[in-house]
Amino acid sequence: MKQTYSILLTLSFALGFSTTVFSQVKDPLPSWNKGKVKQSIIHFVEEVTKKGGANYVPPSERIATFDNDGTLWVEYPMYTQALFAFDRVKKLAPQHPEWKTEQPFKALLEGDMKTVGASGMEGIMKIVLATHSGMTDTEFAEEAGRWLQTTKQSRFKRPYIELIYQPQLELLEYLRANEFKTFIVSGGGIAFMRPMTEKAYGIPPEQVIGSSVVSEFKMKDGKLELVRMPKINFIDDKAGKPVGIYQHIGRRPILAFGNSDSDTQMIQYTMAGKGLRLGLFVHHTDAKREYAYDRKSHVGTLNTVLDTADKNNWIIVDMKNDWNVIFPFEMK
Amino acid sequence: MKQTYSILLTLSFALGFSTTVFSQVKDPLPSWNKGKVKQSIIHFVEEVTKKGGANYVPPSERIATFDNDGTLWVEYPMYTQALFAFDRVKKLAPQHPEWKTEQPFKALLEGDMKTVGASGMEGIMKIVLATHSGMTDTEFAEEAGRWLQTTKQSRFKRPYIELIYQPQLELLEYLRANEFKTFIVSGGGIAFMRPMTEKAYGIPPEQVIGSSVVSEFKMKDGKLELVRMPKINFIDDKAGKPVGIYQHIGRRPILAFGNSDSDTQMIQYTMAGKGLRLGLFVHHTDAKREYAYDRKSHVGTLNTVLDTADKNNWIIVDMKNDWNVIFPFEMK
Repeated sequence: MKQTYSILLTLSFALGFSTTVFSQVKDPLPSWNKGKVKQSIIHFVEEVTKKGGANYVPPSERIATFDNDGTLWVEYPMYTQALFAFDRVKKLAPQHPEWKTEQPFKALLEGDMKTVGASGMEGIMKIVLATHSGMTDTEFAEEAGRWLQTTKQSRFKRPYIELIYQPQLELLEYLRANEFKTFIVSGGGIAFMRPMTEKAYGIPPEQVIGSSVVSEFKMKDGKLELVRMPKINFIDDKAGKPVGIYQHIGRRPILAFGNSDSDTQMIQYTMAGKGLRLGLFVHHTDAKREYAYDRKSHVGTLNTVLDTADKNNWIIVDMKNDWNVIFPFEMK
Repeated sequence: MKQTYSILLTLSFALGFSTTVFSQVKDPLPSWNKGKVKQSIIHFVEEVTKKGGANYVPPSERIATFDNDGTLWVEYPMYTQALFAFDRVKKLAPQHPEWKTEQPFKALLEGDMKTVGASGMEGIMKIVLATHSGMTDTEFAEEAGRWLQTTKQSRFKRPYIELIYQPQLELLEYLRANEFKTFIVSGGGIAFMRPMTEKAYGIPPEQVIGSSVVSEFKMKDGKLELVRMPKINFIDDKAGKPVGIYQHIGRRPILAFGNSDSDTQMIQYTMAGKGLRLGLFVHHTDAKREYAYDRKSHVGTLNTVLDTADKNNWIIVDMKNDWNVIFPFEMK
């Protein structure tokens, strides 16, 4: 296969073909409005791919990392994985009679979301661990995959897997066409995201980094299986993001894209490398087409970043002004 | 780029080219002797790549995992990383006067390897943690990379990076030419291996899985850095191997290759998936060209596997009989 490629590539160059032919013909980012932001992205990609240029980066080092919730898909009014966990509690309730009296399960089953919220991080962790463990790797992937493709979001009445941002799909594709390797680096569960990332974003499971529970390889129902345990293994958020990148990729990204203060450390780690770097944040400013939230939001808080972006050369992407399409289904 | 590829590929098929043309012309595994083992490998690859065949596996699921020590490179008479750690103790000794009296550092500095060995797992861990932490990600990668390329192995008088197995290089290349993604899954340190895997095996750092220390993103010498801490994060050995594969790749391999009882669980996890699978072990039987060791060896113990391979359909690769070349430098 490789031989076929290289023979044909040699042939193509001999015939005068070149990739620039294609990029000049067609706008690689049609859903991005003309302006400073779009220009910065294209300039960056052109610079790092310019052979012999001062900012050239070899393909193997073209690592781009993207947060997921609020950066690649909708996270408002509640993180998708939390909604999945809530649905799982309802589904598993018949097997857990103790939940009728135990908080925060009791409140959740009674629809008392105020009490669930008041149970804080500790309560949410209880729910996540109870609903994300006890099954094998395969069982969990099937469960999450089915839920993501069939459960509809409250406002848009579409399955969650369709609530992904068209401009970001174009950016991912543009980067890959320029020999970048694209990764997700999310606070969300690695095993929750993997059943949808290849279909939704063209990102294979091995390029997804996220939070995880402990897994053990042991006998279950008479078979050796990978079993998910009710114990946190790793939280891939805030300062955990550079750590997750180091453990998983082993290279520093040259481009990173987030949307909240929790992505700050990933962007800092990226920008602190030598040579040209690009750090970006989505700012949710479009209540009409998606949602508008930032400094005081209970999800995806974007506060300190807004105050410090300029002096750090971080780029703020204004959803309302920079994106002319939000979702792929708008284009049909 | 992608567009160029697909246009040219379409063209190539129209012209009657095909990848089989190449594979029929040339033996993809010239350093493997003819016989049952080689035949099993080629049969397996042909089956899983045969479109429309009963055993066809789509390219995205063609995951192959390889142990490192004793499977891809020499591990005898001592794991390379242990030798690196010993060298680091000697180098760092002037900054650690306490090592003059503290075991097992004292014994190591005095060349008393018997006492070092007698300190057991606990002693070795002390040495590894003391020599693999305290520096940034970048500093450690530079240190390990330099050592691997310059330190010579005792018997072969060659840098460790050259003591890799030619037949395995051919197998890795053959698999990748058939659209497999090749990974290393080793009990060795992930950060120790990464500086050499791309150069030695064509395996990029993001496809290396191994043991790790805890890392923290924090201020060091006035800069935000990823700092390696003196604490174990994960041991990627025995039952840890399927766990490492799950966390890192998120897909079950269809081919796995090891050389010791510690690789058993990786092979079991691989073979337990649906469809055609291949599980292999290198058996070090060649004292003349490399080393001969198995059941009672202090490194790379291969014992239970030898007794249970047949009934599990695991393939034992006999180094002496199955490989006609051991190292790349023999071919020059």
